[in-house]
Formats: sequence, structure tokens, C-alpha cells
Amino acid sequence: MNAPTELSHLVPEIRPREVPEVLLRALQDRFGGNFSTALAVREQHGRDESSFEAPPPAAVVFAQDTQDVSDAVRLAAQYEVPVIAFGVGSSLEGHVLAVQGGISIDVNRMNKILSIDAQDLTVTVQPGVTRKQLNEEIKHTGLFFPIDPGADASIGGMAATRASGTNAVRYGTMRENVLGLQVVTASGDLIRTGTRARKSSAGYDLTRLFVGSEGTLGVITEVTLRLYPLPEAIAAAVCSFPSIEAAVRTVIEIIQLGVPIARVELLDKHTVRMVNAHSRLNLREEPMLLMEFHGSPAGVKEQSEQVQQLVADHGGNAFEWATTPEERTRFWAARHNVYFAAIQSRPGCRSISTDTCVPISRLADCLLDSVKEADDSQLPYFLVGHVGDGNFHFGYLLDPDKPQERVTAEQLNHKLVNRALSMGGTCSGEHGVGLHKMDFLVTEAGAGAIDMMRTIKRALDPKNIMNPGKIFRM
Amino acid sequence: MNAPTELSHLVPEIRPREVPEVLLRALQDRFGGNFSTALAVREQHGRDESSFEAPPPAAVVFAQDTQDVSDAVRLAAQYEVPVIAFGVGSSLEGHVLAVQGGISIDVNRMNKILSIDAQDLTVTVQPGVTRKQLNEEIKHTGLFFPIDPGADASIGGMAATRASGTNAVRYGTMRENVLGLQVVTASGDLIRTGTRARKSSAGYDLTRLFVGSEGTLGVITEVTLRLYPLPEAIAAAVCSFPSIEAAVRTVIEIIQLGVPIARVELLDKHTVRMVNAHSRLNLREEPMLLMEFHGSPAGVKEQSEQVQQLVADHGGNAFEWATTPEERTRFWAARHNVYFAAIQSRPGCRSISTDTCVPISRLADCLLDSVKEADDSQLPYFLVGHVGDGNFHFGYLLDPDKPQERVTAEQLNHKLVNRALSMGGTCSGEHGVGLHKMDFLVTEAGAGAIDMMRTIKRALDPKNIMNPGKIFRM
Repeated sequence: MNAPTELSHLVPEIRPREVPEVLLRALQDRFGGNFSTALAVREQHGRDESSFEAPPPAAVVFAQDTQDVSDAVRLAAQYEVPVIAFGVGSSLEGHVLAVQGGISIDVNRMNKILSIDAQDLTVTVQPGVTRKQLNEEIKHTGLFFPIDPGADASIGGMAATRASGTNAVRYGTMRENVLGLQVVTASGDLIRTGTRARKSSAGYDLTRLFVGSEGTLGVITEVTLRLYPLPEAIAAAVCSFPSIEAAVRTVIEIIQLGVPIARVELLDKHTVRMVNAHSRLNLREEPMLLMEFHGSPAGVKEQSEQVQQLVADHGGNAFEWATTPEERTRFWAARHNVYFAAIQSRPGCRSISTDTCVPISRLADCLLDSVKEADDSQLPYFLVGHVGDGNFHFGYLLDPDKPQERVTAEQLNHKLVNRALSMGGTCSGEHGVGLHKMDFLVTEAGAGAIDMMRTIKRALDPKNIMNPGKIFRM
Repeated sequence: MNAPTELSHLVPEIRPREVPEVLLRALQDRFGGNFSTALAVREQHGRDESSFEAPPPAAVVFAQDTQDVSDAVRLAAQYEVPVIAFGVGSSLEGHVLAVQGGISIDVNRMNKILSIDAQDLTVTVQPGVTRKQLNEEIKHTGLFFPIDPGADASIGGMAATRASGTNAVRYGTMRENVLGLQVVTASGDLIRTGTRARKSSAGYDLTRLFVGSEGTLGVITEVTLRLYPLPEAIAAAVCSFPSIEAAVRTVIEIIQLGVPIARVELLDKHTVRMVNAHSRLNLREEPMLLMEFHGSPAGVKEQSEQVQQLVADHGGNAFEWATTPEERTRFWAARHNVYFAAIQSRPGCRSISTDTCVPISRLADCLLDSVKEADDSQLPYFLVGHVGDGNFHFGYLLDPDKPQERVTAEQLNHKLVNRALSMGGTCSGEHGVGLHKMDFLVTEAGAGAIDMMRTIKRALDPKNIMNPGKIFRM
């Protein structure tokens, strides 16, 4: 894999297939007012938060229930036309773009909580439920769902991309927290994977095959999730460090000591500046860790004392505590809004996000070399990290009217990914492959593993209609 | 699925394929002294801890390294002959039985720790490393690997069956703790799945497809595992209860409160009696919970006080503490030896183990009804449970010379599985499907999901040579 030097490497392959009129009529007949070919609707369903562009899908079906999804897929399959499930469109990797044309199936109206089994710490939801909606609707149970990508993403989309977020260091990712699924397959049939039992060794792990398959094997129509008791005590704190290295070395020691920290997020000084401007905060514009501790009051005190000692050892300043729920919410909202704060810092810009994740021992090396390269490039950027997992994101902020900036951003990304892979890491910690990382995935997984993925895809979707053109080229 | 009434339902389908002389000669040429067709060797590789019997494999290859595995599979593939990986033979479900004939590939000599990355809390091992060997060899790092099926199983076998054990309630199962694999595919090619990063959303989750695939998709030749810091403090305790129900209700509350208990095991009174006899202990012969708490000294104290209160609420007696490592080891050795203690309690018997796992809220109902049925049957049995996960095992102890006892045991198992499935549970929490649960799996997963498993199997192993006849019928 050579570093990209020309724009042509960076544009997705657009190969729209024909969508016959007869299919559109059949969909119109079946779905009536829940079907649209209006340009504005199609355009809204043909883009996400990535910097890619493609022609919009030929039509949008607004599914009300599983039967709708099944019928839409069945009709599309009859005419060998692609289907792309659409949640809230917060993908950063072009997942919902209709690069081979086809029909978008919008699942936002499938937004019901189907059952809350509080005693079992499980919940079953439709795919259009968003993570914030879910936590709002289960609040009365004393339980919560910890996975929190920055956006208020749909649970279906989060499952499809194997999302995680700030709590993953303690609670795991969608991989660990999806117990079971209902899926509409490429033939329009329904299957269930998994059960509500916490563990199982009954057959192939179809649940985890679909989690992270990015809509390429089927459309997720129900998700059963693990929940957790709201911690008795929660404490959040920020502290600043003289350097990124000092902050990262602190995190490495926290993890290696086994401190059960719930969240530990890095923001570099640029990002703190953007966050201050966007969220009207007054944080010290230095590399910063934003942390949260969950447990009993005594446990939280013990963890935070341990961490404060490590922080002091690395020259970090004293914790600034968020002691009320409102303050905590303000901190975390600021963190979750980094992406929008960054976009606002350079009006009209688009962001290219990196998503590497490395073994924790290599985190400092990987980050510091990449920070130097980013600084040298003169391109504005932000840097945040779920550093407890070894996962971090540069967001290179480029002017879409300056093609050279995109080339620069891609070159930085390219170097970063190769560095992470050479350290035993992955090109994607949580955003998925989508359009953007197909070449990186080949380098990471190797041709043999990619062939195996293709073989599975061909076997389960012989007409290649499920979100084609993503993850790997067929 | 009707309840079995005749023995014919309970015998595996034996369909040995021909193993041509030319293949045996080619294997002999390639492997020399590491190849055997001696009956005693073949018989040792043709059975496990299940109560099933089948003719032994035609030959055994003792693989020294990945290349050996690859060459053996390639030769077998050439003649469309089955290959069955063999670890220590501790499967309870007939996984290693050569029901369609073929070659056994013994991986016991592939027993090296390949790299310990203590700072990253990961280790990479060959598949023949056993769990006790692993923990012995990493002891100096201050880390441990928590997954502990009763037997001293091989890591390769544990990955292949998605094993767990007593620590899963806190640390998860092989599903959560395998980061990556090297696998020899059905064509003899090598692939790697996963990386050493803690999380990834890079492509299909091939790691978790192979974990639990029971050798039917490939032979695992390397496993990268997560490790954990040895807890600063560990405390183990036993306490007795007036009834199984009281013990189980206690556990349900422990889990629902989110107490991070590391182990919580149920033993019924029969089992305590067998354990006392086998391990020369003097435990009170009543339903018992055996528990362990991990954390800081203060954290362990806090957890155990919380749990003691719950125990008292349910009429359990005061904790009997194992305060020294030696005492703890003795308790847990006794627990891990339950199976052997039970077998000794009825000389000459074989055990049929159940393995259902249910959502925790249904645990008491599921268990109590099944205990009543077992008591009514007059068949001797033991009952142990990883009850924090909702997983428990009856072991029905049958006299192999009394066919009716096997029928009775299977009828009990059948009722238990149907009960667990109706409660949202699974037929197998940790032992795998093997030969024994193929019909249960159809009921659990549904015909559509089984078809999808078969489709994947056909796509990845078109000649059906990888441990055929397990998990599902082709």
C-alpha cells in the first residue's frame, strides 16, 4: 500500500446499478406514504458525517416494523437492487452512501423499546432507538446502557458498526453488550441470533458476525442489550498535564494497575481550545484527561486517590472535580460535542477522522509521532482519545475547496494507520471500515482473512445487495 | 422436538468415510515418528469425557507447529478426509469423536507461550497450552488468565468450544477474552484474525466466528488472550443455605445489585457430600455457595459485607472464610473436582452433563423444577452452577449397563432444556453443542439460523472435512 498522493485514490468507487421502474412502483404500492423518491429525502439519506459524496439512493422506504423491512428487502432482492439501512446518518466512514445505488431503508420509526427486563439487566429495542432515548426510557429502572459514541446514534447503527465510546474501557463495546439480534437476511427472511442468557456456547456466534458487519449481511431489526446498575457513586474530574506524553503515561499506568476506571479521555490543547469556545467552558488550554469513576462511595474514593497519585507522579495538576450531576453532564456534553466544536472552529471545513487503536504499551509512541507529523503539516486538527482502550481520533479539518488539504490529511492518516498496524493495532477502534478504510483493512487483516470475509458475504448475500461496496471490494 | 423414549435417538450418527491408504502413506512420509496408526493411540484420540462412543480415527498426527497442522489439513483435503483437532480430550459433548472417520491432529506438543506482553495485559500461546500451564508460566508477571473450565483444558479447545467456568461472572468467557487467532483453514491456508488492540471495528469478527465453532471451520494454531492483574486482595468464603431456592435468590440479588463478585458457585447437598468424600473436606451437607471476592482490601471487605447481608436475609449461615491461599486453593480444587468426585461416588458410572443457562430472573424457577424432576427420577445426580451467570450443570450418573437409565437421564435433560429455552435461555452455557445438543440447537436457534450456520460452513469448508458431524447435521 503506497501513500496516496493524488485525489483519485480518495474518492469512493461509484458504480450505481439500475433501479428498475417496476421495483419503484412495487415499493410505492406496498409502502404508500412511507415511500419517497423526492430528491430532498433521497439526498438526506445519501450522506453521513463523512467527507464522501455519492449520488443519493433511488428511493427511501420508511419502515414501521420488521415486516416492512422484510418486504422491502424481498422486493429489492427480486430485482437485485442494493438496500442500505439508515439510522441517524452519524457514520463517519460513508456507511450509508449509495455507492452502488439502490434503496435506503430508514428505520427511525422503528424506535420502540420492546421489553425491559430489569431483573435480568437486559433490554430489547428496535433499531431506530437512539442511545439517549434508550437511557431516558430506562432511567426509572435504575439501570443504564453505557455505550456512547459521540453522536446520539441509533442502536441499530451502533450494532452494525461495533461502536463503543467513552465507557468502553470499563463496560466493553457493542461486541460485548449485544446479547442477541433479530435480522432480516438478504433473502428477506427473519432470523434470531443469541438469547437473553448472559453467555452461550450454542453454535456459531451469529450475533457477533452481524455486530460490525456494517449492513453488508442483513438488516438488524431488533437488538437485545446488556444493561448495568447505575453506580451508587459517580465522580468526574479533569486534570491538565504539561505534555501529551505525561497524560498518556499516566493512563498506561492506570490500566496496567487494573484500576476499574469508567472513563478516561484525552483532549489535546487544540481540542480544549475548541471546546472552550463551543461549550463556553474555561478549561486550561493544555493536554487534559477527563475521567470518571463508578462504584460505591468508598470505591470511588479509593480509585480516585490511586489515580491522583499517578497523575501527580507525571506532573499533572490537581483534579478539578465535577461534583454535581449537572456539572458532570456539562463536562461530558462538551466531550461529546468535540466534533461539532472542531467543525465550528474552521467554518465550512470537513473533518477526516482517524480511528486507530493500539495495545496500551505503544500508545505514547504511536500518538506522539503522529502529533509531530500533524503539527508539521500545518493542517488544523483536533485530537481526542478513549486512551484507556488505546483508541484515539485525530480530526483533520480540511477546506473542501483546497484539494491539497485532503491529500495532506490522507497522507497523515496513512502514516498513522501504518504505524498503528506495525504496533499490533487496528485501523478502526470503533468507527468501522465503510468506504474509507478498505485498503487499510487489507493491510491489517491480510488477503486470506479478507477472502474469508468475502466468501461469507457471497454465501449469505449471493446477489450482493446488502450495502454493497463497503468493508471490502467484491 | 419430542422427548426421547428410545435409545436410538441418543446414539450419534456414525458415517465413517473411507481413509485411503495413499493418504496414510503420505502422512507417514511427511510426519514419520509424529504419525501413528496404533490402535491404542487412535483409541485415546477417539474419545472424550462424554458418554458417547464411536470408532477411533484412522490415524493420529502429532503436530509440532503450525506448518504441521497446515500440511496435515492440506493432505486430508486432497483426499476429502475429515480432520479433528485434539487437545486434552476433556470435552463433555463428544467433540473429538471421529463420527465420520478421518485423522486426529493432536496439538498437545504445540504447547509454547509465544509472547507475554505484560504491559498490554495480553499473551499469545499455542493451542496445546493448558490453562494451568498458562497461569504457572505467567505467574511472575503478576497477571493471570481467569477462564477455568473444571478440567485442565487446552487453550485451543477452550477457544473452540467458547468455554468459561467459575470466573466468568466477573471476567467473561472465551468470547470476551480471545483477542485474536491464527487459524489453519479447510484448504490448509493460514489466516490471522484480530489484533492485540483491546477493541476493533475493522471488518467481520472472524475471531468470534472461530471461537465456539468447535473445529468445524478450521484448526486454531495460535491464540492471543487478555490477561488481568492479580487482584491485590482475594477472599473466598462458603456458606450454607436451608434450601437451593434460598441460595439462588441470594445470588440473583447479588447480581442485580451489581456487586462485582468474582466467583459464585452453587453446590447442592448431593454434590457437597461427594466433594467431602473425594476431597476429604468436612463441609456441611446442605446447599452451599462458594464465593470469591477480588479487589483492593477495602473493596473486598465492602463486597463481602454487602453479600453477607444478602446471605443473612435469605437464612444462609455465616461465611466460613478461606483466609490463606492454600485454603482457597483447596476449596477451588474441590469445586473443580466435582465431576471426578461424582464419578467416584458411583463406581463404573458415566455422567450426562446438562449445561443450560438462563436469564438470572428465571434461575430459581428453572432450577427448582428441574431438581424436583431429578429427585423424582431416582437417578443419582450432582448439581453445580456458575449461578452468577445463570448457568448450571446437572450430572446424571448412569450405569452404562442399564440402558433405561440413559433414557431417563436424556428425558430429564430434554425437559430441562425445553424449560430453559422457554425462559429465554440457551441449551449450552459453556460446553458447546458437539454431538449431543444438535436437536436442542435447532429448537433454540430456529431453522433459519441453523441454515445460516450451514451456509457458512459450506462456504468455508466445501468438502466438509473440518470436524464434520458436530453442531448441526449437513
